[in-house]
Amino acid sequence: MLQSDLFTKTEKQAPGGEESKNAILLQRAGFVAKEMAGVYTFLPLGYLVLKRIENIIREEMLKLGALEIFMPSLTSETSWQKTKREKMDILFHLEGRDKARLVLNPTHEEVITPLMKKYISSYKDLPFSAFQFQNKFRNEPRAKSGLLRGREFIMKDLYSFHQNENGLEEFYEKAKQSYFNIFARVGLKEQTVLTFASGGAFSKYSHEFQVINEAGEDKIHLCKKCGIAINNEIIAEQKVCPECGSSILEVKKAVEVGNIFKLRKKFSESFDLRFKTAQGNDKLVEMGCYGIGLSRLMGVVVEEYSDAKGLVWPKTIAPFRAHLLCLGGEKVKVVANKLYHNLLYKNQEVLYDTREVSSGEKFAEADLIGLPYRFVLSEKTLEKDSVEIKERQSQQIKLIKINDLPKFLFEN
Amino acid sequence: MLQSDLFTKTEKQAPGGEESKNAILLQRAGFVAKEMAGVYTFLPLGYLVLKRIENIIREEMLKLGALEIFMPSLTSETSWQKTKREKMDILFHLEGRDKARLVLNPTHEEVITPLMKKYISSYKDLPFSAFQFQNKFRNEPRAKSGLLRGREFIMKDLYSFHQNENGLEEFYEKAKQSYFNIFARVGLKEQTVLTFASGGAFSKYSHEFQVINEAGEDKIHLCKKCGIAINNEIIAEQKVCPECGSSILEVKKAVEVGNIFKLRKKFSESFDLRFKTAQGNDKLVEMGCYGIGLSRLMGVVVEEYSDAKGLVWPKTIAPFRAHLLCLGGEKVKVVANKLYHNLLYKNQEVLYDTREVSSGEKFAEADLIGLPYRFVLSEKTLEKDSVEIKERQSQQIKLIKINDLPKFLFEN
Repeated sequence: MLQSDLFTKTEKQAPGGEESKNAILLQRAGFVAKEMAGVYTFLPLGYLVLKRIENIIREEMLKLGALEIFMPSLTSETSWQKTKREKMDILFHLEGRDKARLVLNPTHEEVITPLMKKYISSYKDLPFSAFQFQNKFRNEPRAKSGLLRGREFIMKDLYSFHQNENGLEEFYEKAKQSYFNIFARVGLKEQTVLTFASGGAFSKYSHEFQVINEAGEDKIHLCKKCGIAINNEIIAEQKVCPECGSSILEVKKAVEVGNIFKLRKKFSESFDLRFKTAQGNDKLVEMGCYGIGLSRLMGVVVEEYSDAKGLVWPKTIAPFRAHLLCLGGEKVKVVANKLYHNLLYKNQEVLYDTREVSSGEKFAEADLIGLPYRFVLSEKTLEKDSVEIKERQSQQIKLIKINDLPKFLFEN
Repeated sequence: MLQSDLFTKTEKQAPGGEESKNAILLQRAGFVAKEMAGVYTFLPLGYLVLKRIENIIREEMLKLGALEIFMPSLTSETSWQKTKREKMDILFHLEGRDKARLVLNPTHEEVITPLMKKYISSYKDLPFSAFQFQNKFRNEPRAKSGLLRGREFIMKDLYSFHQNENGLEEFYEKAKQSYFNIFARVGLKEQTVLTFASGGAFSKYSHEFQVINEAGEDKIHLCKKCGIAINNEIIAEQKVCPECGSSILEVKKAVEVGNIFKLRKKFSESFDLRFKTAQGNDKLVEMGCYGIGLSRLMGVVVEEYSDAKGLVWPKTIAPFRAHLLCLGGEKVKVVANKLYHNLLYKNQEVLYDTREVSSGEKFAEADLIGLPYRFVLSEKTLEKDSVEIKERQSQQIKLIKINDLPKFLFEN
């Protein structure tokens, strides 16, 4: 797209009232705008990143065989009373018509479990799983970490339903692998650590996916030997690595980017979600739930990769693969326009900067926006029928023939 | 997809507590499930319809040059005080931390107008437009019309920003054409009537797109001569057709599926959204807003097309183009499976029913789900190397060679 078509502008100064790196940079680069603490608008570039993350997650969910649905944000408080969670302090409560007490859902067990009573009656109806991308609401006491801790945020939540613990266990392991795939695909393969956390009343553990980062609000104990970790919340009971038994653990700050949980019968019991076995017995359904915060994931990528000059996007979730800068007069513009349209025609959309501002400003903005490649076309490069290519995090500049650029983008 | 992979089931009986045709049929066919009055979950088939509608609308918005964004549902009540709309009776109010008074947005002028103060300062920043697909919340006094009147519902809202009235006018006309395109593409070309409605304090009229239907809660006065209409709310001031002057008007019930509105300076004044003209003068930005309720549109399509047997989907928004029924033993199944995979390979996904239920039940469910084409493969059709084809609303059945089916789907 033409950069001049973006209504957003980049800002040289950090916005007031923000402490976190992700919120400052994403606002300076025009990816998000703050509505209030923990509540952001996603602007065109930020929305594109969000959609790329969403598509990666959707592909992995569909590979798992899960079906996509869309549940509402509003629920009756009575559903939350049934699970004894109506007093959770992060719940937003509100009143509907006729004094109806409502809740804005921070998670959807209270919606999906009673819903499935309609569709589950026999063992033949199991197993299956369903997921959604949906806004969640949490009345957080503090929300100073930008996209890392939202009061309103976009989440993918997946719920699975099984006949027995074995079925749940099998799906849970597949979901765990999906989660590793997702974090790898968004660029956080090396940084994401499987972390044992509290399993609640029904399971020994749940698993979190934690990205080790100083901006994190979680504390984890990393096993130096096998690379998994223990959440600080269970370190009193779990003093050694549950994988290898090692007691050499290192305390790290981390951000939880995903959480998978064997709910077992916790919610099916609350809502009496049962099925008839092949033998004709009544049994409670075994459930699992699996969450990823999309906007938080976006914030973590910023915390991990950005540098003093600005954002740095992994290729898989960058709003565009490359930033094409046109520096120079009419002659350069004609060639740059032709190149831009040639790339569009080949389905390789780039962000194209034709604005009448100084080269220095263009370079600084390209660094701030942080697309993986910067292409510069100037009178100097034109003399050699070439474009100058630079990767965002590299100092190295190389020339490539204009005609070879589409091929370069295909291959990189 | 395999019908057996759907966790939903169709129901022979209407769900309790529903009065409206769309809610009854969509629930019986497993497209939606009711959470509470005016609040629904979209199940896999319903979600697919919603996504098809969303994609049609998105294409038309992008053709207009609008950029996609995503705004939050939570806003501070103070923004609503600035526009003097904080007392609107359909607003949901809630309390955040530190007694902060919040609102769940039923529309987003109160978010986008102050947001744009950051990006609009000069005439060079104008015009532009931005849209989103987002959940809206309205604390409706009654919500008995299924998807036609939601307390929580998905909407596309578009906002445009201009230097002057002419610019607004020009964009407004293009948006109007986009809206006609959208309604035509979702299958409501003949039924949608441009309707003059109240323009508020700043404009003479706004325009609604009304679908004439007995389920509608609006009353419009249809001009027999030129086919446009007047909303009952302005008939006292506007007694003749504003297009042709005719006074032969017919009263009809209708459902508003879209609304476009020249806001003019109403909101830019509330938030002091100004720009410098080329001459250096300060001026308020001219704005327009343009809304379509996606879930309502889905409900209207059901009201318009369904019959005694069930849903009837237009090809453009059907969850699948066709329903493939396999009737018969192993021999038929082998051929049907091969056909199904051949169609998948050719990117023509159908809903494939291989379940062990009676033919009668399969036919009844196919009618209830309402996909545009029903393909039947049985021992009888197999003798002729053929598939039986029936359109949902036709009684006519014809045979087509199995090998010609992909071509048929391409061409129909």
